[in-house]
Amino acid sequence: MRMITLEEVASLLQENDHFKLLTHLYPDGDTLGGAFALAFALRKMGKKANVAVNGPVPSKFRYLTERYEDQDFEPQYIVSVDVAAPSLLGEQVMQGVEKIDLCIDHHRTNSITADNVYVDADAAAASETVWQLIRMLQIEPDEDIAAGIYTGISTDTGCFCFSNTTPRTHQFAAEVIPYCDWQSINYINFVVKTRAKIKMERMIYDTMEFYAGGKCAVVYTTIAMQKVLGAGDDEMEGLANIPRQVEGVEMGITMREKEGGVFKISVRTNDGINAAEFCKQFGGGGHPAAAGCAVEGDLATVKKLLVDAAEAFL
Amino acid sequence: MRMITLEEVASLLQENDHFKLLTHLYPDGDTLGGAFALAFALRKMGKKANVAVNGPVPSKFRYLTERYEDQDFEPQYIVSVDVAAPSLLGEQVMQGVEKIDLCIDHHRTNSITADNVYVDADAAAASETVWQLIRMLQIEPDEDIAAGIYTGISTDTGCFCFSNTTPRTHQFAAEVIPYCDWQSINYINFVVKTRAKIKMERMIYDTMEFYAGGKCAVVYTTIAMQKVLGAGDDEMEGLANIPRQVEGVEMGITMREKEGGVFKISVRTNDGINAAEFCKQFGGGGHPAAAGCAVEGDLATVKKLLVDAAEAFL
Repeated sequence: MRMITLEEVASLLQENDHFKLLTHLYPDGDTLGGAFALAFALRKMGKKANVAVNGPVPSKFRYLTERYEDQDFEPQYIVSVDVAAPSLLGEQVMQGVEKIDLCIDHHRTNSITADNVYVDADAAAASETVWQLIRMLQIEPDEDIAAGIYTGISTDTGCFCFSNTTPRTHQFAAEVIPYCDWQSINYINFVVKTRAKIKMERMIYDTMEFYAGGKCAVVYTTIAMQKVLGAGDDEMEGLANIPRQVEGVEMGITMREKEGGVFKISVRTNDGINAAEFCKQFGGGGHPAAAGCAVEGDLATVKKLLVDAAEAFL
Repeated sequence: MRMITLEEVASLLQENDHFKLLTHLYPDGDTLGGAFALAFALRKMGKKANVAVNGPVPSKFRYLTERYEDQDFEPQYIVSVDVAAPSLLGEQVMQGVEKIDLCIDHHRTNSITADNVYVDADAAAASETVWQLIRMLQIEPDEDIAAGIYTGISTDTGCFCFSNTTPRTHQFAAEVIPYCDWQSINYINFVVKTRAKIKMERMIYDTMEFYAGGKCAVVYTTIAMQKVLGAGDDEMEGLANIPRQVEGVEMGITMREKEGGVFKISVRTNDGINAAEFCKQFGGGGHPAAAGCAVEGDLATVKKLLVDAAEAFL
């Protein structure tokens, strides 16, 4: 395992062929956008490249695969894109994979074992790195490539709002938006809400409680609530940002009940409170301002556990 | 009245002194950000410059004026920034003003009478033009200037989400964010919500009705609702974006009751529906995707009027 430079990553892509690109569990805009952009770029170089996704591509991201079809070949070079930890490599993508040849990521806490690792923790998204590689390899961008890069960059930065945005992020956005329908991408990712989602938001507001003198806000959804509303997983996205938006709140905790007596916890923070540190106590991790973990137990127990930890932490 | 080039605008700024910069009624991030950035820049050139605002600067934008104090001088050169129409020049800013020497704006429908007019309808914000002028005049940016420009650009584009965003918009953001605390600016403008605002949002969802086969969503607030919640004008901002976010909605209409039996109407559209055209029927105007007007009458009457017009329009 060696840490390599961006130039070396570009060389490896140039020298190898028959790529399998691995995305992470619960795929988001960055892992999908970055991986599909890279696959389209490699194909433009005359190489074979497939993207491996755990389960179907979420319906909102289908636009990334309009002109994509799996190619038929035996994978020879395995690349993970935006995968922070081995636990995020689902069974499905790991089928037939013995080792990872190259890891491209932007999570400071990256713990993937791979022959070659490139982690740019200053990148707002792994897709920033993919874009740098595409430029370095002098591949002419097209709509598919640009849509992937823009999706990765814009979704990981909350549309250029989160603290991970840098001048480079805007620079890369300026470079790719002439090639893709970024307005539709924004509409899909940042504007449109189904009626079920709106109802879910209202229900979530009803659960909001404040702790630590108003510095911590906690909300939750249960399987029963989701059923009542007929809300799918798409409707649940973005809910994690609700509690930290309230004036005075430094840490927003969203508890989402999953099957099997476990709550998926999303933590979002303001004012330099380290969400990843907080989630580490529960075996989770992530970014300084956005992290997560999973906690087993019933609603009241899990909530008390989190609230006590938050009051000690803040 | 003559239409001039950007270079000519820069020359006029260089040749003149004792500037009074006019902002529009119900001041927003672009008129304030652009005007204060220009004032700080002119002062850096050794000139005198004041910004005229109708009423106090809204509390959320106070950060723009932390190092600003009115200077004592007789205005000699009057410049309007981001003011689309004479009706938006409030009495207070027009005190002692006989004519406008220079109009800097980005509204295609601009109808200001001024000796010199520069309207760049491709600019997402008037602040884009101000930034071009600052670069052209080779004024070194500082925190005040950058905060003004970033505020204008980011608020007028909904944080780079709206269709008026261009590669240049991102380019300019990349140039100014190294100089200002854009994260705090984003938090203030795009993240934080008071508890009163959250309650107002929930109440507004309760008023939501759909017309034209789901293509038109209408919501309203009344003075009584605002009073019950103790919501100020700050809480009311951004509500106009709620109805157009619903899946399938092409035109979102927000009716806001004001004192004196009048409703302030905000129209937001998707899919190329022209909001300005729609509002023109009621004596209003604005941008293709965001426009407004004022309609007198009681809630039921005004709503019926708008809904009938929307059903005919869509």
